[in-house]
Order: sequence, then structure tokens, then C-alpha cells
Amino acid sequence: MSDSPILLTPGPLTTAIETRRAMLRDWGSRDPAFIALTAELRARLLRVANGQGTHAAVPLQGSGTFIVEAAIATLVPPAGKMLVLVNGAYGERMVNIARRMGRNVEALRWPEDRPVEPARVAEALRTDPGITHVALVHCETTTGILNPLADVAAEVAGAGRALLLDAMSSFGALPIDLAAVPVAAVLASSNKCLEGVPGLGFALVRPDVLEAAAGNSSSLSFDLHAQWRGFEGDGQWRFTPPVQVVAALVEAMRALEAEGGPTARHARYQDNFDTLLVGMRRMGFTLFLDQAVQAPIIATFHLPDDRGLAFRPFYDALAARGFLIYPGKLTQAETFRIGCIGALHRRDFERLLQAVSETLAVLEAA
Amino acid sequence: MSDSPILLTPGPLTTAIETRRAMLRDWGSRDPAFIALTAELRARLLRVANGQGTHAAVPLQGSGTFIVEAAIATLVPPAGKMLVLVNGAYGERMVNIARRMGRNVEALRWPEDRPVEPARVAEALRTDPGITHVALVHCETTTGILNPLADVAAEVAGAGRALLLDAMSSFGALPIDLAAVPVAAVLASSNKCLEGVPGLGFALVRPDVLEAAAGNSSSLSFDLHAQWRGFEGDGQWRFTPPVQVVAALVEAMRALEAEGGPTARHARYQDNFDTLLVGMRRMGFTLFLDQAVQAPIIATFHLPDDRGLAFRPFYDALAARGFLIYPGKLTQAETFRIGCIGALHRRDFERLLQAVSETLAVLEAA
Repeated sequence: MSDSPILLTPGPLTTAIETRRAMLRDWGSRDPAFIALTAELRARLLRVANGQGTHAAVPLQGSGTFIVEAAIATLVPPAGKMLVLVNGAYGERMVNIARRMGRNVEALRWPEDRPVEPARVAEALRTDPGITHVALVHCETTTGILNPLADVAAEVAGAGRALLLDAMSSFGALPIDLAAVPVAAVLASSNKCLEGVPGLGFALVRPDVLEAAAGNSSSLSFDLHAQWRGFEGDGQWRFTPPVQVVAALVEAMRALEAEGGPTARHARYQDNFDTLLVGMRRMGFTLFLDQAVQAPIIATFHLPDDRGLAFRPFYDALAARGFLIYPGKLTQAETFRIGCIGALHRRDFERLLQAVSETLAVLEAA
Repeated sequence: MSDSPILLTPGPLTTAIETRRAMLRDWGSRDPAFIALTAELRARLLRVANGQGTHAAVPLQGSGTFIVEAAIATLVPPAGKMLVLVNGAYGERMVNIARRMGRNVEALRWPEDRPVEPARVAEALRTDPGITHVALVHCETTTGILNPLADVAAEVAGAGRALLLDAMSSFGALPIDLAAVPVAAVLASSNKCLEGVPGLGFALVRPDVLEAAAGNSSSLSFDLHAQWRGFEGDGQWRFTPPVQVVAALVEAMRALEAEGGPTARHARYQDNFDTLLVGMRRMGFTLFLDQAVQAPIIATFHLPDDRGLAFRPFYDALAARGFLIYPGKLTQAETFRIGCIGALHRRDFERLLQAVSETLAVLEAA
């Protein structure tokens, strides 16, 4: 629809009109046609991460936080202990979820601009043999930092522990090869790099891990073992699924395949990011992160305080031009964020840069 | 879209094309436009049940079961005790949710074809002063039976306890007047009588009840107190909302108001039900429930075993004609269900009856 703004956010994001049009149909949630759609959804989710030989896909209604909570409730047994590797708000949220649930949890922390260090993880696992699970955020949306998945996974597997990977803002674009990298469970949602609409999370979990997790969850809704059993049994969801959101996600994943899969998507996002960064630097903005640790998913820029630029008027002026940017989420620095994901191309970022330039001219003249 | 089947189910159900078209837009979930849409959603939800002076609306991502679990986790304190009034699967599910969560819970049970009896509720509350909360399912989708809300609410309030009302399949059509009937919290979802699409539940809760509930929930996602504080604070959702599902529900509630509100909707559903019942009886089908306790939401019919009619071929033949009916959910009798809710009118049921007649002719000739 022509009145949709361009969303430069970490999700919900700009989706293809074909994805939204897939929601124009009603579906009976227990009808064979929808059962087939659910099977396609589950198979496609696995293929995105090359997990068809090793993992099972368990979608769950709700936001990304819900699938994270469900994974902790189901996969970390009450007698287990989870170590969360924290360098941003989403790592902190996993600590918070586990603590409230009464699970034994510890955090290993890094500054928001520093990636997780595999050697410190290995050291922590040597020191505390009680740790059964390690949780890592692949790309921290707080800043856009990329954590070293393969190296952390190797340390965790080498120490005989299970890795839970929050791949919320990387899944579908950054490489995740479940056949090669040892991960017990990957968690993500419909509305980020898969470019679906929000309303659905999912876990890709090793079946032996799911088998062993029966009875762990004290939540009926957040029991991924029971959810998995339901799908494997009659192919149906245990509770009413968001049928239109499912249809949109399947359509979006067909488009992902047609685009060339995660590799092609990664390249497009990288092009978006590069276009953005060159243009923003030209206008005097600086990236919060060292570029070496920056994923091409979401860019955090400093809000230059020497130019009298405040977030709100900057946001409003860009919104009036049809572009929605995102506030910062940092505890320290004054920043704003611009997402590079969604059904967007270099030309969208060139138009954005033009809008930023016009906005600066207006705001700095005022 | 012309290839949508007619859904004769308890939800997801047939929605108006205008409702589905409201999903063609992308929304930034932290943008003022979406914050305004959320405010409209919350205000309209209250008005449907005349709760604008007494309750606060707290929507939550996910299925109807999620909002039920969140309400129990948040509103029944760990030291409380819940009495669930059970005459069907959804009452049993509330018992199951509370038990797994470790809440103190008891059930008072009736056969599936008998309404809850207020006198027995009063007696149970006299006998056990430890009961702090009573949970009632307004219309049990298991059978379609209507439970006596006003009388149960009066007994519960008279005994000084709090009533949690699962109004999943009644909200928006059957009368619920929160200014007149004492209910602590009403729970329902987007995809039943409000005729939205699935993906969203909501609770209408008395603010004093929410105030007192801080810290009760051991689930971060299912903390309705925190969710409420978030809305009251900056108007935003704590976690990514299903923006298109929200937009569809607001559009559906505008249509509900234009139709004449719950009274007019109730009348349309009653007309659907009456049309269905007369026609089905003419073809020899009998209603499972006594008509006196039957709500015009979903009708359970016996599957006559003397006519060699099995559910699967009956379902498939009707599906081939564009009508999706629903299996029974009874522990005892062989039944099937036909929903009377959704964007459907008498002419749809007349067409359904024609399709049933043709189907019977084919199946009984075989």
C-alpha cells in the first residue's frame, strides 16, 4: 500500500507487498490446507539454516521474547544452570527471564561495543562444571554487534555443554550452518531477516534435546516439547495459530529462496549498509561500533551533540518524509539506529540519505 | 479473496475482506501512528463490554490460551487459590495451566451438557474460605453451552472473591456489562466474535486488581501488570506487537460499531444459528445440547451412527463445496460442530444447508 512508511527498524520492518497480500485469505486452522502450509513453514525454516538433517522446527505464537522464554523454560531443566553471554539488552533479557522463572542463571558480561570472547567463555565453563547451557545472542540488536558464533559454539561443544542461540536479528541473512556448527537450539522470529510480519517465533532444536526436555516447562503455553509433539503427531498447532501471519511468513520464505537464499540476502543487506555508512559519514555521522564487529543488520550512529541535533525532531522530520528510524537502546551514549533489513534496496537508502540531508539543512538552519 | 473457504469454526473464522485489507500496510511499532492505533484498540475493547469506567485493557501477543495463562500467572498470587468451574475442555485447560504453574487450584465439575450451577459455587466458597479467585468459562466452545455469568458473578462477589471470566467465544456478541456485573478480569481474543484475525489476546482488568498484582508472575512475557504499566507509561508494547493483527482487529471493531455493537451482532449470530438449526433438524440431525442452554455461537450436532456417516468423508465433501466445519471435542458422544460466528449471514447458512443436503445425498447413496 502506498501509504506504508519505509521502516528502518529492527522489526517489524518493511515487507514485500506480496508478503502482505498473502494475508488476504482466511484459513481453517485444522484444515488439511493449513496443515500442509504449516509443514511447508517448518521445512523451510530448517532449510534456511541447513538444519534439515539435524534439527526440528517448532514455531510458537507471539513475539520473539516468547520463543526465548519458551526455549529457556523447556530446554534448561530446573536442575540445570544457564550461563548467558551478555553484551547488550537482549542478553540481559535472557538473564531476567531465567531468573524470574527460578532457573539457576549466571551472566558473563562485556561492554556493549565489544564482542563476546570465546576464551573467556571456555574459562568460565572450566571454572564452573555446574553450567549445563550457554546462551549467546548472535547479533545484538542493541548496537548491531556480531558475536563470534562458530568459535563460541566450538568452545561450548568442546566443554560438553549445550548452546542456545538467539538468532533473532541474524536468521535468514547471516550464515548459520547447523550441519557444521554445534548448536542445540536456534531461536528467531518471523519479522526480521526472513521479512515476514510479526506474530510468530520459532526454535530449531535437536530432536534428542527436545526428547530430553519433556516435563521441564512449568508453562503450558511455553512448552516447546509439547508443541513439537503436536506438530509431529497430527501436524496441527496445539493452540490457535495466527494463520495469516503463518501464510505471510511462508510467502516471505518462498521469496527468500527466489532471491538466492541467505547468501544473496546477506549481500543485499551489506550493500544497504555500505550505502548507508558512506552517505552518513559524508554528512558527519560516526558509527558507534568498530566496523570490524559490525553486522550489516542495524547500524548505531552517534547523535552529534555539537550540532544541536535532538532525536525527536530528527525522527519527526524523517517520518514526515516517509522514513521511520529507530531510537538508540544504549545505557551510555546518545545514539540512534537505522536498520538495513527488510524489503529494501540500495535505492531506498539513497533516498533516505537525501531525506537526511534535507532534514539536516532544515534543522541546522533553525 | 475469492478462494477463501467459508469457515464454520470457532475461530480462526471468516473475516470481512476489509478486515484483511487492513493488513496490507507496514507499521513501525514505536511510531506515533501505531501508538495511536494501540490506544484506539484499548479504548474500543473496553467499550465493547462497557468497561471504560471500571477496567483497563491489556492486549497480549499470541493465542487465547496465552492470555488465560498470563491472567492466572499475574492475577492469582502464589499464596492464592483458584476454583475453576468446569464443564468442558477450556475449563479443564485452566486447571491444567494453574497446576503446572504451581498455583493452588481446585475444580468444581459438571457434565459437558450441564451449565455451571451458582448455588454449588456459593456452597464451595462457603466451605473453603481459602479460595481467593473463581474462574468461569462464559461460553464453553467444547459444546457451545452458555454458563450463567450474572448469577455466578453475584455469588462470587457476594462471597468477597474475584472472578476471572474466560469470554473467549462470547466477547463481542453475548452481553457482558462490566458496569453492572462484578468481574475482576475478562479474557478473550481477536479472532472470535470480534471477527479479527488470530494472533492477539486481551484482558480487561480492574486497575486495583492490576495494581495489587505486581510481582506475581514468574513469567516475563506473561506479566500483565508489566504489560499494563508499559501501555500506561509510553503507550507502547513491551515486546514486538503483531502490527498487522492489531490493525485488522481495530478495523474489525470499527465494523462492529458500524453494525450496531454486540447487540446487533448477537442478533445476526442468533439468526445464523436459528437458520442452521431448522435446516439441520429437517435433515434429521439433532443438537447435542438442550436448546435452553445453547449459545448461538457454535452448535454441536450428533453424528448419527445409524446412517453410516463418518466425520472425515462428511468434512471432505463439505470442504470440496467450500465449507469448513469443525470436529467435535467431546469425551463421550460422536459429534461435529458448526460455528455460527464470523462475517457470515443467513444466506451463507442457507448455502451451507444446501451443501449438506447434496453431501448427504452423495454419501448415503454410496
